[in-house]
Amino acid sequence: MEEFSIVGKNVPRNDGRAKATGSAIYTDDIKLPGMLHGRILRSPFPHARIVHIDTSKAASLPGVKCVITGEDTPKIKYGNWRLFPDTQDEYPLAIDKVRFIGDEVAAVAAVDLDIAEEALGLIQVDYEELPAVFDVDSSIRKGAPIIHDYCPSNISVNRKIQYGNIEQAFAESDYVREDTFTVHAVSPAYLEPCAALAQCDLDGRITLWTSTQVPYIIQCLLASTLNMRENDIRVIKPYVGGGFGGKMELRTWEFCAAFMAKKTGRPVKFTLTREEEFLAGRRRHPMKLYSKVGFKKDGTLTAKDLRIHLDGGGYNAMGPTATFLCGTFGAMLYRYPNYRFMGEHIYTNKPPASAMRGFGAPQSLFATETQMNIAAEALGIDPIDLRIKNAQVTGDKIPDVATISSCGFIEALQKVAEMSGWKEKRKTLKKGCGIGIGCYSFISGGVFNWFNTQYPFSAAEVKVFDDGTAHLLTMAADIGQGCDTVLKQILAEELGLKMEDIRITSADTSMTPQADLGAWGSRLTVMNGNAVVDAARKIKARLFGSVSARLNLNVIHDLACKDGRIFPKGRPDKGVLFGEAVAMTQKASRGEPVVERGYYTPRNKGLVTPAFSFGAQVSEVEVDPETGIVQVKKFWTAHDCGTVINQMAVEGQLEGSIQMGLGYALSEQFVMDGGKTLNTNFLDYKMPNAMDVPPSEVSHIHTYEPEGPMGAKEAGEGLAIPTAPAIADAVYHATGYRCKDLPITPEKILAGQS
Amino acid sequence: MEEFSIVGKNVPRNDGRAKATGSAIYTDDIKLPGMLHGRILRSPFPHARIVHIDTSKAASLPGVKCVITGEDTPKIKYGNWRLFPDTQDEYPLAIDKVRFIGDEVAAVAAVDLDIAEEALGLIQVDYEELPAVFDVDSSIRKGAPIIHDYCPSNISVNRKIQYGNIEQAFAESDYVREDTFTVHAVSPAYLEPCAALAQCDLDGRITLWTSTQVPYIIQCLLASTLNMRENDIRVIKPYVGGGFGGKMELRTWEFCAAFMAKKTGRPVKFTLTREEEFLAGRRRHPMKLYSKVGFKKDGTLTAKDLRIHLDGGGYNAMGPTATFLCGTFGAMLYRYPNYRFMGEHIYTNKPPASAMRGFGAPQSLFATETQMNIAAEALGIDPIDLRIKNAQVTGDKIPDVATISSCGFIEALQKVAEMSGWKEKRKTLKKGCGIGIGCYSFISGGVFNWFNTQYPFSAAEVKVFDDGTAHLLTMAADIGQGCDTVLKQILAEELGLKMEDIRITSADTSMTPQADLGAWGSRLTVMNGNAVVDAARKIKARLFGSVSARLNLNVIHDLACKDGRIFPKGRPDKGVLFGEAVAMTQKASRGEPVVERGYYTPRNKGLVTPAFSFGAQVSEVEVDPETGIVQVKKFWTAHDCGTVINQMAVEGQLEGSIQMGLGYALSEQFVMDGGKTLNTNFLDYKMPNAMDVPPSEVSHIHTYEPEGPMGAKEAGEGLAIPTAPAIADAVYHATGYRCKDLPITPEKILAGQS
Repeated sequence: MEEFSIVGKNVPRNDGRAKATGSAIYTDDIKLPGMLHGRILRSPFPHARIVHIDTSKAASLPGVKCVITGEDTPKIKYGNWRLFPDTQDEYPLAIDKVRFIGDEVAAVAAVDLDIAEEALGLIQVDYEELPAVFDVDSSIRKGAPIIHDYCPSNISVNRKIQYGNIEQAFAESDYVREDTFTVHAVSPAYLEPCAALAQCDLDGRITLWTSTQVPYIIQCLLASTLNMRENDIRVIKPYVGGGFGGKMELRTWEFCAAFMAKKTGRPVKFTLTREEEFLAGRRRHPMKLYSKVGFKKDGTLTAKDLRIHLDGGGYNAMGPTATFLCGTFGAMLYRYPNYRFMGEHIYTNKPPASAMRGFGAPQSLFATETQMNIAAEALGIDPIDLRIKNAQVTGDKIPDVATISSCGFIEALQKVAEMSGWKEKRKTLKKGCGIGIGCYSFISGGVFNWFNTQYPFSAAEVKVFDDGTAHLLTMAADIGQGCDTVLKQILAEELGLKMEDIRITSADTSMTPQADLGAWGSRLTVMNGNAVVDAARKIKARLFGSVSARLNLNVIHDLACKDGRIFPKGRPDKGVLFGEAVAMTQKASRGEPVVERGYYTPRNKGLVTPAFSFGAQVSEVEVDPETGIVQVKKFWTAHDCGTVINQMAVEGQLEGSIQMGLGYALSEQFVMDGGKTLNTNFLDYKMPNAMDVPPSEVSHIHTYEPEGPMGAKEAGEGLAIPTAPAIADAVYHATGYRCKDLPITPEKILAGQS
Repeated sequence: MEEFSIVGKNVPRNDGRAKATGSAIYTDDIKLPGMLHGRILRSPFPHARIVHIDTSKAASLPGVKCVITGEDTPKIKYGNWRLFPDTQDEYPLAIDKVRFIGDEVAAVAAVDLDIAEEALGLIQVDYEELPAVFDVDSSIRKGAPIIHDYCPSNISVNRKIQYGNIEQAFAESDYVREDTFTVHAVSPAYLEPCAALAQCDLDGRITLWTSTQVPYIIQCLLASTLNMRENDIRVIKPYVGGGFGGKMELRTWEFCAAFMAKKTGRPVKFTLTREEEFLAGRRRHPMKLYSKVGFKKDGTLTAKDLRIHLDGGGYNAMGPTATFLCGTFGAMLYRYPNYRFMGEHIYTNKPPASAMRGFGAPQSLFATETQMNIAAEALGIDPIDLRIKNAQVTGDKIPDVATISSCGFIEALQKVAEMSGWKEKRKTLKKGCGIGIGCYSFISGGVFNWFNTQYPFSAAEVKVFDDGTAHLLTMAADIGQGCDTVLKQILAEELGLKMEDIRITSADTSMTPQADLGAWGSRLTVMNGNAVVDAARKIKARLFGSVSARLNLNVIHDLACKDGRIFPKGRPDKGVLFGEAVAMTQKASRGEPVVERGYYTPRNKGLVTPAFSFGAQVSEVEVDPETGIVQVKKFWTAHDCGTVINQMAVEGQLEGSIQMGLGYALSEQFVMDGGKTLNTNFLDYKMPNAMDVPPSEVSHIHTYEPEGPMGAKEAGEGLAIPTAPAIADAVYHATGYRCKDLPITPEKILAGQS
């Protein structure tokens, strides 16, 4: 095992002090001279044809500088990035129809927000209402209203996977189980609402500051929707207050800010309200999941048949990708010798669902894990033992996906059983108390080129200086998850520097090296970490050359960087200061600065991801038999994220995941009426807060991922998966109520308890 | 001769529209949240010991956040950059003594400017006045007050040059002439007063926005005076409203902004008033010049003996470098087989003199040119003919300086004689009217490593994109002279792109490639132009490789970039779009962005400069015999700046030079009383305005400088030299008054006319 100096330590986050002191600048904090404030007019109907829009009154309101509708724009569709143009179904502003309550219809830019708001009320839109559908079953029923003309079935995407022979496998199984699960929509509920500020320079170039997870993708999509060249657009990501998948698409306000800045010659800023975020914001896909699994008597899995209907809302958004991934996630975690998947993405007249932490996995694995618990009971096998029997291990191949290059799943199961006193509690807990299990595997970024980029998936530029410092430039987007800190740690470790020796500049598409696909799919530690390692090793090769020459080293010597020095391995007394080595290297290169770029694109790693994380979580609950209220007493988590780069950061991810999983399982949901979201504030949208989160214990299972930087894998999304199934299992253990339709409400428990 | 598409054209300046519309952001336009405003307390005495400073009243004034004196600072000296530490004699704030009226004593930062100003009045400084000296003769007299303890002679620097045998040469001359000249101080009078804004981040790193010619030098010197690491400091140059040499040093307000930002945790901004600029700002060196020249009867120069006393004011500033350069300039332009120079830099109790456009040459060549005119008359040779006889030509060697690799001086002399009707007017003009000549040669940047930098003298990074655009990054500082435009033109020409295809980012020490020494010595076109060409050629080599492979070209083919396409030379129909070539090249490199860095450091070019400009100017005047008022009727200029990259920009330099030379010759001067500058506003400081500038004709003499980018040389400073001697010569021709002590005032003419 490598010994690390900085990697694996509890290094404070790069952004901690700035956020704690209030000096962190978010998009909405930026004020430019002459800046206009934008507001968006939204549809009050779930489904309607736009007959006519009259903006004249709004435009003549003093202080209003620009009013636009879809007709004013270049009318270029976007949605689901740009890989499959035929899935792009959304205009920045609606052209023909509106498809959900909150759909964007027009935009106003005025000298202040009050005037912009007043102007919205002066825009006259004549709608012709159309019948609407609000669930997948109604949407695919014959005669249902057609939401997009190009798609009479309302099924916009489907994906099939099949390997082995599932019919034969089921026939030969000793036990076959079929269930249908439903899961609901929840909000990413990032603390910073979406905001975008655009400035157009005199050459017509746009600079956009935006609260985004994907600066490079915004640059490209903004260019295509504005009909501009990509590199005439610069996207800068200021501090971002969370994303969770909700900020990984080009959105209306980004387009409008840029378009209106170009039109008016003045900077234009849009910042959404919390009400807009809840009313119309992207949300986790509600799904209906049919799952059939077969087992041998001894518990060996034989086959799985998974069919999922994704409720996509009014537009595809990132839904096609989620549809694809649901099938992938369904085949992960356990060994399925025979597997079939059919996913369908279905339009309804609700706010579009899209990516959210786990991106299909929380839904898909809720079904998997719950069904595993049902089967364990039926087979008379302890659920953890049943999992260990079928668990994936290092070297396993998932057909068409990947070979698993590191896996600590069995160790995690064993560890979480031990930590939680599983066997004992499973037997002895009194009625009303229960203990349950949920597991996960997740991807560490994608192998598939989802954005069809021409650039490497990740890049890093490292400059080193004779004063012993380094500058790291990366397009990676720190959205609060801490990648600026993690990437600095990786660089500091490679170069033997201290954290304070490194300046980082990130997420500015004009100034940081091309390119990076953004913060999603838990990709940054592996992808950009590898790019940083690549750049650092190129730097080291040059510095080592200079030092070897200067010290007249025997060719058998290797060198090390540590504590700000470079020296022959085993002879730390002998070397030179890091800055001296840089100065020598510059001298050797006619003074040219010592700068290198590193890149990483996963290759020869299958189709899905370069590395899989694994983990298991046990929850213990107490359920009040009178009220049905669930109190989670404690969580135990054992997980394998490979090398832990920053323990505090990983544990922070776990805490956030538990908070989010708790809400998904027990309290959060959108209350809808005829397509209208009724609970549009934090008071009514019952997200757990710090007081609601129970104590938690964690064990980091040590594995070393050969594809990851210094052995690391993802820790950001997988942990958001097991909490809901673990709670559902514990509630069943406590009450006899087996939840197959999230959330687990007191009403359902009272009705279902035995 | 090469055919250029963009080079040589009248391409509008990059900054033109921004400046014309007022959207250009200068340092003082930047406002940061919580920003404090700084003011500087200045000495009222020309020479005094600081006995005690009490800042307590000022510090307790509500709204004052920080008051500092020299005692609060790290007390690290600076001045004259960092090559010769023993010439550094200045602290950011005076420690022991003040040495001129306006010397910086303390600084205040407060929530607004009025409070800061009020606080200055509350600082109690006890001074012990000391005797002061105001001219070089008094200063070097025995028993004169000692201005710096380390330097009892008050002569801080001297420089000698000698080659040949001047004594023998004078002895063998047919005509020997000795004169003493004096030249006065003038102000660079840039329209934007100096300003600096510093912010300190939570990691203790400083960002400084400053109106400077030398971002990299400020970064380094700020680091050394703050005792910080260089790369913990980032210097950004916003738009700059002129420098002319007056903004090429680290100055008090830059230090104080940074130091006080670090101390208070709040941004701190200083902006000087015009009064401060005139009262205490850097100015062109007043000098006393003794010159002796020998000729053969036929006009052939035999020897020159030049002795110069520079009046440095209270500190060295850039004076040591000026002292060195005066000797160099004295040996340029004509062939001096024997040469001796002695320069002495002398302290006086006046505001320090420093660099200003021409940096020693306007003074030195005023003497050279006037003496040449005197000698021509004595020898009975036409002054232009005498010059042609002695003019340097391509291939000439200046001992210890350089071999001249291109020279259009003789052609310029011939051309200007023809344009102005010289021979005719010289004979026929009526009394009161006159025509005169002045010439120049100047450097195109320095070869000597004046800043002792470890980096190349210039650098450029070029990124090219598959959308057919390019991004040029350079630390070169556009201070209004237009280098952003010129460098873009050079890149556009090399890559065959249009100006609007190129984005430029310049002069940000953290984001643009290390390094560049700044805007001085007319260095940027040659130095950074060469770096741009180097980067562009590396890019082209890669693109040409991809295109040759794709088009399956015979190895004998060479390729060209033009009109956004890359094609085999002579077969423009055949090639591919520039963006396509970039895409191919990326494909060939695993998607890695196509980025290259270019560098230039002059080598094997002697000790002084890689390339010399040359030129001659004729002026025609009419002098009122009653009032002595000189009216300049017209200028004719023929000059050799090698390839003209941007004709408008070169002609703009000429117009500015004429305006500046006109002021130097006739109207500008500091009115001083006991070390105090009395004329501290534009009304009393009689700088010529647009209405004062006469018509002008110009001829660009074509040469191709092999060391310059596309054959170019300097055009920014040399042109500022000939105007004063040309006017002086014309005044002599008109009136019989031969000026040897600038400026040429009506009083002197009336007293001196014959």
